[in-house]
Amino acid sequence: MTDYQAPLKQMRFTIEHLVDFKAVNALPDYEAVDADTVEAVLEEAAKFAAGVLAPTNWLGDRQGVKVVNEAVEVPAEFADAYGKFCEGGWPGIASNPEFGGQGLPKAVAVACDEMWAAANVSFALCPELSQGAILAMDRHATDAIKAMFMEKLISGTWAGTMCLTESAAGSDLSSLTTRAEPKGDRYLITGQKVFITWGDHPMAENIVHLVLARLPDAPPGTKGISLFVVPKYKVNADGSPGESNDTRPVSVEHKMGIHASPTCVMAFGDKGGAEGFLVGKPNEGLAAMFTMMNYMRLGVGVQGTGLAERSYQKSVAYARERVQGRAPGEKGRVAIIRHPDVRRMLLTMRALTQASRAICFYTAACLDRASHGADAESADFYQARADLLTPVAKAWCTEAALEVTSHGIQVHGGMGYVEETGVAQFYRDARIAPIYEGTNAIQAIDLVGRKLLRDGGATVSAFVSDMRAADAPLANAGEEMAVVRSALARGLDELVQCSTYVLTNEKKDPELAGAVAFNYLMLIGTVIGGWQLARGALVALDQRAAGGDKAFLDAQVVMARFYAEHVLPRCAAYGATIRAGSGSIMALSAEHF
Amino acid sequence: MTDYQAPLKQMRFTIEHLVDFKAVNALPDYEAVDADTVEAVLEEAAKFAAGVLAPTNWLGDRQGVKVVNEAVEVPAEFADAYGKFCEGGWPGIASNPEFGGQGLPKAVAVACDEMWAAANVSFALCPELSQGAILAMDRHATDAIKAMFMEKLISGTWAGTMCLTESAAGSDLSSLTTRAEPKGDRYLITGQKVFITWGDHPMAENIVHLVLARLPDAPPGTKGISLFVVPKYKVNADGSPGESNDTRPVSVEHKMGIHASPTCVMAFGDKGGAEGFLVGKPNEGLAAMFTMMNYMRLGVGVQGTGLAERSYQKSVAYARERVQGRAPGEKGRVAIIRHPDVRRMLLTMRALTQASRAICFYTAACLDRASHGADAESADFYQARADLLTPVAKAWCTEAALEVTSHGIQVHGGMGYVEETGVAQFYRDARIAPIYEGTNAIQAIDLVGRKLLRDGGATVSAFVSDMRAADAPLANAGEEMAVVRSALARGLDELVQCSTYVLTNEKKDPELAGAVAFNYLMLIGTVIGGWQLARGALVALDQRAAGGDKAFLDAQVVMARFYAEHVLPRCAAYGATIRAGSGSIMALSAEHF
Repeated sequence: MTDYQAPLKQMRFTIEHLVDFKAVNALPDYEAVDADTVEAVLEEAAKFAAGVLAPTNWLGDRQGVKVVNEAVEVPAEFADAYGKFCEGGWPGIASNPEFGGQGLPKAVAVACDEMWAAANVSFALCPELSQGAILAMDRHATDAIKAMFMEKLISGTWAGTMCLTESAAGSDLSSLTTRAEPKGDRYLITGQKVFITWGDHPMAENIVHLVLARLPDAPPGTKGISLFVVPKYKVNADGSPGESNDTRPVSVEHKMGIHASPTCVMAFGDKGGAEGFLVGKPNEGLAAMFTMMNYMRLGVGVQGTGLAERSYQKSVAYARERVQGRAPGEKGRVAIIRHPDVRRMLLTMRALTQASRAICFYTAACLDRASHGADAESADFYQARADLLTPVAKAWCTEAALEVTSHGIQVHGGMGYVEETGVAQFYRDARIAPIYEGTNAIQAIDLVGRKLLRDGGATVSAFVSDMRAADAPLANAGEEMAVVRSALARGLDELVQCSTYVLTNEKKDPELAGAVAFNYLMLIGTVIGGWQLARGALVALDQRAAGGDKAFLDAQVVMARFYAEHVLPRCAAYGATIRAGSGSIMALSAEHF
Repeated sequence: MTDYQAPLKQMRFTIEHLVDFKAVNALPDYEAVDADTVEAVLEEAAKFAAGVLAPTNWLGDRQGVKVVNEAVEVPAEFADAYGKFCEGGWPGIASNPEFGGQGLPKAVAVACDEMWAAANVSFALCPELSQGAILAMDRHATDAIKAMFMEKLISGTWAGTMCLTESAAGSDLSSLTTRAEPKGDRYLITGQKVFITWGDHPMAENIVHLVLARLPDAPPGTKGISLFVVPKYKVNADGSPGESNDTRPVSVEHKMGIHASPTCVMAFGDKGGAEGFLVGKPNEGLAAMFTMMNYMRLGVGVQGTGLAERSYQKSVAYARERVQGRAPGEKGRVAIIRHPDVRRMLLTMRALTQASRAICFYTAACLDRASHGADAESADFYQARADLLTPVAKAWCTEAALEVTSHGIQVHGGMGYVEETGVAQFYRDARIAPIYEGTNAIQAIDLVGRKLLRDGGATVSAFVSDMRAADAPLANAGEEMAVVRSALARGLDELVQCSTYVLTNEKKDPELAGAVAFNYLMLIGTVIGGWQLARGALVALDQRAAGGDKAFLDAQVVMARFYAEHVLPRCAAYGATIRAGSGSIMALSAEHF
């Protein structure tokens, strides 16, 4: 039995109504994707998540992973589940059909990603990283390299990793020291990488590392970094895995959560150099790797959403069962879901989860619309919007996941702190999400520095205009939407004022962008989430009038109102803090902290 | 070596300037407490915390506790540390001198409590519970019972526990079922208690359980609960521990944190009944237990403060050492403490920690002033204020601890998620604090129901008036305090408006108090914290003008400003949410969550 069921109704509603799926479906690459296919994929994914993956989650947490004889061992149940995952064709559902992928839109695949993360986030990281590697190769590798790796990765027979971080090069990659020496048509890689997720494991027949390293003549800093593909086993002429390459997992980290995801220290070239191939141009590796990184950033936001959803489901189930205390107007003791403060927590969990889902799915749809046959103008527009949304999806949704999974523990009371209850695992597993694939501060600085300031606020302004368009229908919806309308308008006003404040003042104060970035990201994420829930409520009102599923539709309206009353007011706090600038942040010298 | 040093300078400043210590010192019971004694106690406590307790913290987390042959085993280092703790006279520093205590004010002892919690919160819970048991007995037990237990508890030779919770009776104690049958001058107790902190261990020669149970003729509900003292070993006529009583630890919970604090399922009366003595009047046990409970509630707030402080110290140390990235106006790579967003996190940690400390210490001083020879009017006034502050100290400071310890992980980046770094332990250890000794929702409902509504807002109003008194000196302090003054004034306005809103509307809406309680607690705690930091800044300005320690005093001013800019703006969000009432919270039926 499982305690997770994918929220299919809510996911379908999000895909159908909150991400402009019709526009995705109209793209040349996706015209053939019919509603039945989407429905079948979602239903089968839900079954797989609940039936195969979810039951492995707790045992993975307890059992963990270890390095034995220079190889990582994982729970046997994981290898079994991975086999079924590949048999089901899940690794390649959104990948390039040219190499065996099913070519579904990311706007659909993202729902599956959420299910995998909710069911077992440690497991989900493995295929997620493969997908990132596939995307980076598809964009940047030569045909010869693609021929060697793509089909195997898309089928899941082989798995991918992302090898960026070194012990002295984390958020700042400029100082990375791994070297790549040319040798014929390939390169010999030497260096040590840390925090390599699924850096080694026995679930796939080969492991395909994407590694950042420096060529001998490379300039210093980030402009001298190149990208290489380095397989665990060298690839034979017939495409099969051959002799061992010079790579090995040195150790795995002992972490607070995601215990079943091996986080490896990886040694390359201990015996003279691991053979690899250059991906993309020399010294332009960081840009190529960012294809994978951005894919993973959205993926991490989706993880947060999945963990939040699972914690919510478990907490609702507990709150319905656990009887404690009395309530006005009711005889006898009541289930705690009757108590206002328990409801406040559950509704906060649900509101943040729905907003996270809408943000992630919408980002995925924007990515779809940025290519796949879109006309150039439209592609540019949605690429810019996806670029804006990616750090928001990563950081806002993972901050939300911390809050949601913490509420999940609190709803359970003392039982929430007992590991066997299971809800603590979601809290521990979620805590990595604001850190990896670029800390949330890095996301925020990317958002303010590259997405807000670089185009003078144009992309943000265009998005604000789109969000303002909800005002008229909210006004038409009358009293039921009045609170939602006013709270969203206030949030948008705050966003506009703060954007202007940052655009106007950043030249005068070189510390300003860094000082306000995090709160700016929280502000825009909170507003986008409110806009999405408001849109959902508007759709729900229409459908309800047309005789739709009343309970489900009423809940959309309630959630928009709850979000307006309990989440959107945070915008005032973010705004006030942004407008305070960098003064008090920069005032103390380091020794006086 | 240790990574914790008690923040003595900040603690002294808090005691001297933010808790009206002169008024405490003027009380008849405390007139003899001179400055040298206080200084000596704080310095020795700091040495003990850093030298003896802090080094046991991590090993306790790794080693944990277990039940072997019906007894709990704890790390050997803990028993050693406990022996030294008792030799040093630490258990009884604030206890009744009649039974060997040193009779220091709680306003001083609370600083030691913070040090113990920061150094090793699992350990600290043991003497903390003994103190609560001592206080409850001192207030409610007969002289014969006091003669049997008090000296042993105050010396630490014996240890105390609090046995309230049963599996079906947690937040709602009305349904507890443990029975007490009269037998001569004593009672036979039968029942099972859960979540009993330090319910069994070998560090003390005897364990003294304070147990809630029902007499045979007891009315149902909370009005039929009596309090009993039940020792692990029956007490011989000469006061020594005698034969085993009928109590035993059944198991210990496997928890997310505080691994070295045994959380026991305790069986009483498996072999016919555990002998105990009635404390206080029959059927009035809950009131007597609340003496202990309120003591523990402040203690949990202090725990949160201690964990926050330790996480802050570790994070500052890491941020000074870790070099990563560049900064405007500086050559080469810089320590990450140079980066605005890292500073934002560290300053948020420090601001919330200082505010937590001030709230807890001030609550302790109010408790001192509620008795110890104070005149009746003053005693009543400060008892009411301490009653108001206790749930705030417990809940606000533990919510702050979650936030602070989470930032602590984030400052460490990927290393923060690796257990060996140590900062994750503080996050895991802190997560229980919003749950035990009454969940934070229970605190909030106590605050709104019993402290705000019951006296029509009088106690809150009196406190608001005291806080408003800071406005004139803030105005006189000029531009440097302008931001602090306006933010505090806005926070106070919000508090007054929300208090009026709740007082005016609660009769019309029976769900209102429960719906808004948590946000009301967060609001008042945020304002009180801001008031205390503002007071600190005013003192600092005076002392700076008089030639005091410039760096330390400047930091007080910066922290008040940072709190005004980054924490007080949250009041607007709390306020908006409170004024939204209970509508969206109560709208969904249980099955539609």
